Amino acid sequence: MIKLDEGTMPVHTDDGKIILIDQRKLPESIEYFDATDIDQMCFAICDMVVRGAPSIGVAAALSMAAHLKKLASSQSARLSVSTFDQVKEKLDATRPTAVNLKWATGEVHDFASALLNENPTNKEFGEKVFRFAEAMLLEHLARNKKLSDFGQSVVPQDARIITHCNAGSLAACGWGTALGVIRSAHINGLKPQVFVDETRPRNQGSKLTMWELTQDGIPATLICDNMSGYLMNKGEVDLVITGADRIAANGDSANKIGTYSLAVLAHHHGIPFYIAAPLSTIDANIETGEQIPIEFRNKDEVRNIEGKPVTVIGAEALNPAFDVTPNHLIKGIITEQGVLTPPFKQSIKDALQRNCASK
Amino acid sequence: MIKLDEGTMPVHTDDGKIILIDQRKLPESIEYFDATDIDQMCFAICDMVVRGAPSIGVAAALSMAAHLKKLASSQSARLSVSTFDQVKEKLDATRPTAVNLKWATGEVHDFASALLNENPTNKEFGEKVFRFAEAMLLEHLARNKKLSDFGQSVVPQDARIITHCNAGSLAACGWGTALGVIRSAHINGLKPQVFVDETRPRNQGSKLTMWELTQDGIPATLICDNMSGYLMNKGEVDLVITGADRIAANGDSANKIGTYSLAVLAHHHGIPFYIAAPLSTIDANIETGEQIPIEFRNKDEVRNIEGKPVTVIGAEALNPAFDVTPNHLIKGIITEQGVLTPPFKQSIKDALQRNCASK
Repeated sequence: MIKLDEGTMPVHTDDGKIILIDQRKLPESIEYFDATDIDQMCFAICDMVVRGAPSIGVAAALSMAAHLKKLASSQSARLSVSTFDQVKEKLDATRPTAVNLKWATGEVHDFASALLNENPTNKEFGEKVFRFAEAMLLEHLARNKKLSDFGQSVVPQDARIITHCNAGSLAACGWGTALGVIRSAHINGLKPQVFVDETRPRNQGSKLTMWELTQDGIPATLICDNMSGYLMNKGEVDLVITGADRIAANGDSANKIGTYSLAVLAHHHGIPFYIAAPLSTIDANIETGEQIPIEFRNKDEVRNIEGKPVTVIGAEALNPAFDVTPNHLIKGIITEQGVLTPPFKQSIKDALQRNCASK
Repeated sequence: MIKLDEGTMPVHTDDGKIILIDQRKLPESIEYFDATDIDQMCFAICDMVVRGAPSIGVAAALSMAAHLKKLASSQSARLSVSTFDQVKEKLDATRPTAVNLKWATGEVHDFASALLNENPTNKEFGEKVFRFAEAMLLEHLARNKKLSDFGQSVVPQDARIITHCNAGSLAACGWGTALGVIRSAHINGLKPQVFVDETRPRNQGSKLTMWELTQDGIPATLICDNMSGYLMNKGEVDLVITGADRIAANGDSANKIGTYSLAVLAHHHGIPFYIAAPLSTIDANIETGEQIPIEFRNKDEVRNIEGKPVTVIGAEALNPAFDVTPNHLIKGIITEQGVLTPPFKQSIKDALQRNCASK
């Protein structure tokens, strides 16, 4: 049975507090992290207490709103746009690749700036901004379900699917993107089976995706990242679906390191490769994936496994957290405005316009 | 400085004893494992105390010889070929994919069988068989150095090389195959730099290859298995070289899981992909790689990292230990009879003939 309540939501609010599932602790235990304070939220994003582009975005939006509410309640003067700028900047600096973070804090910034013109009391201002951010949380869930419905058209009956990292409920504020499509397919009786890449160095596949799929009773088999090609060559894979952290205007998509290799392997074997992501993942300001900044994380993530060294002391290591899959390797991008297909420049533009019109 | 003495040889003999470096313990500590007893050797091969196709082969040959020597000394009747069969069968059953094991025990079997015709005393028989196996150890080292010399023709100056698993001194009875080529290139002043795949689930890359390269002062950077495509796409890789566990008559090559994916990625990026292996790795009895049996190891190797669970309890997992790279993805096979090139069926046949003629 699919359970989606506050207890398993990556981000939820409780009487003004912002509570995160501590994703570093799964699957061993479900622990919660109070990230109401903005410094705690910055730490939580950097250290991956909360991760996944949409979850990071919403968590940051809530944190910005909570911080503005607190500032407003502690002073009599009204807040200024320059304060919004400062708070947004601080949160945006935590992780560079995913664009949803900047998008989400941008939404709060725009809302708060517009609200100033209504001359609210500081109390009204704080409450309205926080409610706006809370609404983003629910809206994300609805968008994920919608994109998952659209995604059903690409999932054949009994599909054997490879996914990478975690693009599930934990990553996407409930339901999920790539895992959302799979979850909906499971509910719709399509009987998907999933091969889950463990996704070194942080093992989001073995820890988070395996946990989500097991919770939902969806057949899942854990594999090491280097086994996908073997399975594809044996004819045991029908489909690859992953999430994304930033999509350029031409469809080039940044996602967790290893996604590009998967896309090349899928291409070589004639297996369709799909991205599933809400439109907030699209960065229309950049033309191609070459402009997407790639985060390099601490080399110890590669040198160690679960905190234990697995190589010689002082070993050199490389730890790019993301890679970019060029549009020509992507069969479609599954969004809440339908499955976008090549040429992506046009289909993305159209989807963004439909999205604006529907607001 | 390159050091190759008994202390760092994966297999050596000491007054009739067979001593292995315990490769499970590297790089934390150098510990030795006494595998003189045949049951201990079978355990050592299964549990990967000793691993790497050539090292396994020579270790098994020594074990077979030591066991026959012990049998001969404990009885007055002379040994029979059926006894050789039994001992060979027991050792051959330890791991199915690498053919060097069967080749090496076959060499001992042939030698011992022929020796019977000379009517030696049991003492003479035992000593001669053991000396024969000891000679195989030294011969392997010479063959590795020779193939490494031939391999220099494919290594450009300042080459940035990806290798997978460990095809070094530890795997190949000294010097190495893929790492042997790199080691020789380093000595020859070609200044190779190596990206080392960690090689989940057993991490031979991060543990053994990084250890060997660091010992020799060869620049090495550890990466996760899912990062190779990223590096290739950035133009940071000139060459891929791996070892092999069994090569079919047409050049299809089985090697550590993940090698096939690397070969596909190299092909996609126009980067030359080479196999380096002694001719004992060739199984001329099988026409294509489809006939190579793939070993599936304990699923806990995937579910756990360094003995610690990294996924949900009871998770399904898959653990193929090898995959097969088809000949069309291989630019050349570096052997002690030169670098073999397509069409491999012919070049392999010719090399095996030259090898026979040189004996």
